[in-house]
Amino acid sequence: MTVEIKRRGLMFVLSSPSGAGKSTLSRGLLKSEPNLTMSVSATTRSPRPGETHGREYYFVGLGEFQRMVQDKEFLEHAEVFGNHYGTPKEPVMEALASGQDVLFDIDWQGAQQLRALAGDDMVSVFILPPSRAELERRLRGRAEDTPEVIAQRMAKASNEISRWSEYDYVVVNDDVAVAQTQVTAILAAERLKRTRQPGLLSFVDGLVKGG
Amino acid sequence: MTVEIKRRGLMFVLSSPSGAGKSTLSRGLLKSEPNLTMSVSATTRSPRPGETHGREYYFVGLGEFQRMVQDKEFLEHAEVFGNHYGTPKEPVMEALASGQDVLFDIDWQGAQQLRALAGDDMVSVFILPPSRAELERRLRGRAEDTPEVIAQRMAKASNEISRWSEYDYVVVNDDVAVAQTQVTAILAAERLKRTRQPGLLSFVDGLVKGG
Repeated sequence: MTVEIKRRGLMFVLSSPSGAGKSTLSRGLLKSEPNLTMSVSATTRSPRPGETHGREYYFVGLGEFQRMVQDKEFLEHAEVFGNHYGTPKEPVMEALASGQDVLFDIDWQGAQQLRALAGDDMVSVFILPPSRAELERRLRGRAEDTPEVIAQRMAKASNEISRWSEYDYVVVNDDVAVAQTQVTAILAAERLKRTRQPGLLSFVDGLVKGG
Repeated sequence: MTVEIKRRGLMFVLSSPSGAGKSTLSRGLLKSEPNLTMSVSATTRSPRPGETHGREYYFVGLGEFQRMVQDKEFLEHAEVFGNHYGTPKEPVMEALASGQDVLFDIDWQGAQQLRALAGDDMVSVFILPPSRAELERRLRGRAEDTPEVIAQRMAKASNEISRWSEYDYVVVNDDVAVAQTQVTAILAAERLKRTRQPGLLSFVDGLVKGG
């Protein structure tokens, strides 16, 4: 039997411009880490085909969303192209209290709001593409897009990239297997921080005094 | 070709009571991490059979040791059972400047001195044994030891263990393969901290502006 030290859960934030491979890394983490759950956002936008309430999003009406904002039920929220998105506080707090870690796939604005509330309970990782050429290649991915759309996307990506300096860790996603290992190592290490292991106090007591 | 971001080396400190498996973990790290070098201490004690000057220790006379203390050539130094031990500053600083990480196998007193000088460049990990019974078993290892010697060792180990709360990370060495993975993850993660990668500034510049 392995020694289990009681620990606090942490909020693990991955941010990146689109085209840096963040979704792939998130999926990989959730698959390899049984003790990690994805934070599910609430949104006022309509479900797309294949999306399930409570899995991809909690789909709520505008009135309900505004009530949740009013009652401070969100950790962070934002409006993007006329749709509202927010992270409900309660499921996150329950997960953390039970020693589960929670993964957040949010942008720099969400990360800023979360950081203000979460403090040391939040660990943030920024994912960068390996080069401008590769970023362009990834953003050009869909054949139906016009040059204007691609140029807009590049401008948006550049703007997001400029927020890298607000994050605790920075991973360059060149080889996705290497980046996956690096993101996993960051999570593993953060779990081992002394301050995240409140159970050490009684464990060490047993070591020193016996019993 | 993988993207190489210029980074600063870090001082990686492993401390533990004897019997917690620190030496095994150090050897494992040095074997798996080509970019990690062991800090070699200077000592006034005599070489033991098999020890080589410059590999296990720099063997120096008391006069030379005192001159080095006087000239502030040590990062940390201490006297243990009448022998002097110290970490020469220059080779460590050279390694760090060239982006190499340096491993320190030192006790809590050495770690305290190093922390005061190194600040954020130092990362410290405390290794704990999995249980009091297992610690006793490991300290009882050598058949020729008397109960008094073992009791003394346990008292010394307990005293060292009480310093766990001064360290950044705490690893419980129950299964040595797991502990090895954990220590390796801590080193990997610390290398990815934004503040340890000064090369990111020009790298991101290239991403955003092109060229």
